[in-house]
Amino acid sequence: MHPIIYDVAVSIDGFICGPDGDISRFAQDGAVVEDYSARLQNYATAIMGRATYEFGYRFGMQAGENPYAHMKTIIFSSSLELPDATDVATQKSCDAATIDAIRRRSEGPVYLCGGGIFAGSLLAMGQIDILRLKRAPIILGDGVPLFGDSKTPPELKHTETQGYDDGYLFQEYRVLHA
Amino acid sequence: MHPIIYDVAVSIDGFICGPDGDISRFAQDGAVVEDYSARLQNYATAIMGRATYEFGYRFGMQAGENPYAHMKTIIFSSSLELPDATDVATQKSCDAATIDAIRRRSEGPVYLCGGGIFAGSLLAMGQIDILRLKRAPIILGDGVPLFGDSKTPPELKHTETQGYDDGYLFQEYRVLHA
Repeated sequence: MHPIIYDVAVSIDGFICGPDGDISRFAQDGAVVEDYSARLQNYATAIMGRATYEFGYRFGMQAGENPYAHMKTIIFSSSLELPDATDVATQKSCDAATIDAIRRRSEGPVYLCGGGIFAGSLLAMGQIDILRLKRAPIILGDGVPLFGDSKTPPELKHTETQGYDDGYLFQEYRVLHA
Repeated sequence: MHPIIYDVAVSIDGFICGPDGDISRFAQDGAVVEDYSARLQNYATAIMGRATYEFGYRFGMQAGENPYAHMKTIIFSSSLELPDATDVATQKSCDAATIDAIRRRSEGPVYLCGGGIFAGSLLAMGQIDILRLKRAPIILGDGVPLFGDSKTPPELKHTETQGYDDGYLFQEYRVLHA
């Protein structure tokens, strides 16, 4: 069973994007982004909600395209429509058996790409093992919370912090499952 | 003009307390609390909203008592009722002239004690200069957000990070006023 890792940029007030999915205030380059890109190479499967996948359309990604070519990408949605020829998989149900099967079949750690609501669902199911937060030196004030509207408060164990010159902090936590 | 410093414990998802003001999951002792206590000695004036002041009643504080004996304490409220003999001051209006006067008259940095809604109001007024966050290794999922319902997103400059053995991080930021 491979771990599920939520590797995400977050403002100091806990938002992963501003209103209307705005991520323009997060760093687009620099050491924190380079380290994140390096981590991505170690993830074998990407899982995400529909809105996160479709967010890529704004940047020219085509429907059915795989945003992470070296990973198997699975989009959780009951309504996403993709062309017949697609490089990604879709998954309608988000139950424990489905998630466990993805962990088992993955050839390495599973990258939870977002968004906040999907992450909150997985957190509530006890299906997030590691948090890797890129803590941005910004206040957003509004937008999508780190865990959507999930009110699940699991215990954490802090495992790593690294600072960057631009004020970013990398914070890693292990989620302690009951 | 002395700075206003918001020195507060916050969960990784951005809450300063859980539902019903619950702070039981934040550290009550250890190095992060000792360092916070040491910082408190350098603050000359404490400002807070009514709910934050009255929160002290749960721990045996009497109405009118000053929770920070070495500071001048000012509670912003239009409705708080205190006995005639009181060790704290109340302030009904929260306009810029009032806050500026407090900064000028203070004998040192002004400690913004909370809560989130009051902090959000001051943030929106451009009246917070420094954030000192005790980032707790906990998820709360619900409660009072760091800046209440304020949607003001000022720019920050990260100035300091310090880690603690128990997984807490001290994060300091300067608020860049436009």
